[in-house]
Amino acid sequence: MTSLDDYLTWSGEVCGNELQRLFSPHALQARGQLYDLILDYPTRGGKAMRPALALSSCLGFGGRVEDIAPTAATLELYHNAFLIHDDIEDGSLFRRNEPALHIEHGVPVAINVGDAMLSLALQPLLDNVSRIGLGPALRILQTVSDMTRITVEGQAIELEWVRDNTWDIGDEHYLAMVERKTSWYSFIIPMQVGAMAAGAAPSTLERLERFGRSLGAAFQITDDLLNLRAEPEDYGKEIGGDLWEGKRTLMLLHAVRTANPDDRARAIAILGRSRPDGRAQMDSDALLDRLASSGDLSPAGRAELADYLAGAAAKTRADVQWLFELVTSAGSLDYARQVANALAGDAASTLSAISELPASTHRHMLEDLVDFIVERTK
Amino acid sequence: MTSLDDYLTWSGEVCGNELQRLFSPHALQARGQLYDLILDYPTRGGKAMRPALALSSCLGFGGRVEDIAPTAATLELYHNAFLIHDDIEDGSLFRRNEPALHIEHGVPVAINVGDAMLSLALQPLLDNVSRIGLGPALRILQTVSDMTRITVEGQAIELEWVRDNTWDIGDEHYLAMVERKTSWYSFIIPMQVGAMAAGAAPSTLERLERFGRSLGAAFQITDDLLNLRAEPEDYGKEIGGDLWEGKRTLMLLHAVRTANPDDRARAIAILGRSRPDGRAQMDSDALLDRLASSGDLSPAGRAELADYLAGAAAKTRADVQWLFELVTSAGSLDYARQVANALAGDAASTLSAISELPASTHRHMLEDLVDFIVERTK
Repeated sequence: MTSLDDYLTWSGEVCGNELQRLFSPHALQARGQLYDLILDYPTRGGKAMRPALALSSCLGFGGRVEDIAPTAATLELYHNAFLIHDDIEDGSLFRRNEPALHIEHGVPVAINVGDAMLSLALQPLLDNVSRIGLGPALRILQTVSDMTRITVEGQAIELEWVRDNTWDIGDEHYLAMVERKTSWYSFIIPMQVGAMAAGAAPSTLERLERFGRSLGAAFQITDDLLNLRAEPEDYGKEIGGDLWEGKRTLMLLHAVRTANPDDRARAIAILGRSRPDGRAQMDSDALLDRLASSGDLSPAGRAELADYLAGAAAKTRADVQWLFELVTSAGSLDYARQVANALAGDAASTLSAISELPASTHRHMLEDLVDFIVERTK
Repeated sequence: MTSLDDYLTWSGEVCGNELQRLFSPHALQARGQLYDLILDYPTRGGKAMRPALALSSCLGFGGRVEDIAPTAATLELYHNAFLIHDDIEDGSLFRRNEPALHIEHGVPVAINVGDAMLSLALQPLLDNVSRIGLGPALRILQTVSDMTRITVEGQAIELEWVRDNTWDIGDEHYLAMVERKTSWYSFIIPMQVGAMAAGAAPSTLERLERFGRSLGAAFQITDDLLNLRAEPEDYGKEIGGDLWEGKRTLMLLHAVRTANPDDRARAIAILGRSRPDGRAQMDSDALLDRLASSGDLSPAGRAELADYLAGAAAKTRADVQWLFELVTSAGSLDYARQVANALAGDAASTLSAISELPASTHRHMLEDLVDFIVERTK
């Protein structure tokens, strides 16, 4: 796996340098912290998978680093803007082992930083006109326009499921949502814009779409599997965070679907509850303790207020433990691994048929990435 | 004022039809509510000032309605995306006499709807290539890219002032923030893209920039003055909402600056407090009443918990009344009217010097708009 890691490290450096080139000069001017905050998430050391896909595709099809680096950086900007807004939407407290941006700087500033990143993403794509020529630049702009539309549509579907506590979702609908929300902007589009910058043919773009569609879904499922089982040091996200959040995953949908009616009702009731806000609770516990010890509050009153302040219907640790056991005892992990494995297999055979992509370190990176995801399904 | 009203009504119809053309077909497909929610704020009957500026500039310089309608609709889309996110950032409960989008559908859905509108704004600008030709289309794309960057920079400056409870702000810095946050996207850019679509010369674009800069600042100040004094039926926003929110306005900055040290310290302390969340408070009051009447909670404990649940340091009605009296007694309203009047006068003389814009209903609309804003300064 070393060569994949090396490629990702190199891609992260190319992309990080490009983001510094694009935005650090602005930070010198009197514009508050905006540009520092824009560079916050991208410099927390993510996987740089999207830049690696864009670079490998461009270089693999005969393009140069400088043809794609600004576009690759732009995709990373979109990705991090979506992460900042996702973290607010999901009530996440951490991102890459540090406090989420809205926890450190408040929701208002964090919303605006995300908006700034979405807005600033246009300029490097316009600069493509002089860099790689009008035709490829306009094709990339059109592709990115499609990408952002599809992504927010996918996000809208998921957020409405959350808002309405919808769990009656077949795998087909779930996978269609994941494809819109994740596969397009994380897999298909990075490779397509790389190929466009290198002047690849439309037939190649279609194959990359099929490859990215399967690989993206396989990646999402294995990522969700890891969230349920990985050790913190291996993974860098909250363990079981998806269960606290009530995120729709292939495993959880399978477990809810195959549970007996009582368990299903209990699962849906738990999943409809919010996630407790740890910080607010510590604060209010101290106040209640003080009032109880001074005799201003009875034990019964204390219990009732503690429930209220914890968010009344917030999930408890026991709730999440029960969900975890439901998922593991229903065989849902094996089921999800099989689906992911089949999708990764489809991606592997699609890639092997893209004969117009010659053997190179760049093609090799894509093959390694498929192997890495297949490995994660085991 | 009838001809201005008529022009705004017509512009609103042109823009509304264009937004329906662009987005209502998507709403028919199985994509949840996203496209209905995108059309929510734009169909609540705003003033349509930005479309009117874009249309009047394009038609006044010899262009056609169809050359600018999609771009005008796009600017309205940006405007409404910023409003949705502003309403979350400011904790506003209402927008145009109806509940704010995040109140009706929750913060997660509302953030994503705003993101969707920012993302979808790119497509009509790309369609400009086939509609008005490559040169004007690319110039408009570049102008909109600059616009969104400047707008989020202005918003970032204001949000940092709010976060840090900064009130030591000179008029020059305040006006520079307003220019970035409001004048560019609400005045300068609508007229510039209209002129670009009609093929106007660069020298004209510069004059429009100066005109929009002064007019935008005058408009913002008079809008803030109205927030302090207008009757609800005349205005459609929360009265005194700016004081509850702690919004930096020319009046409030003047009042804080000229107050004696004790009043200044008191004002800054009040302004650092949050705005109470009316809905949460009703809920918790009922619980505390019940516990107090059952003897589980002492009167002293009830008072302390009520403070805590109201947000501990949230502003009270008496606080806001005191701020209102500070502003009115300090002569800050007259001061702000004078500044706005001078800015509107500068706008009027700049417009009168734009001799390349021939007399027409379109030029007349701009003159009427200046008169309308001068009128509001009285």
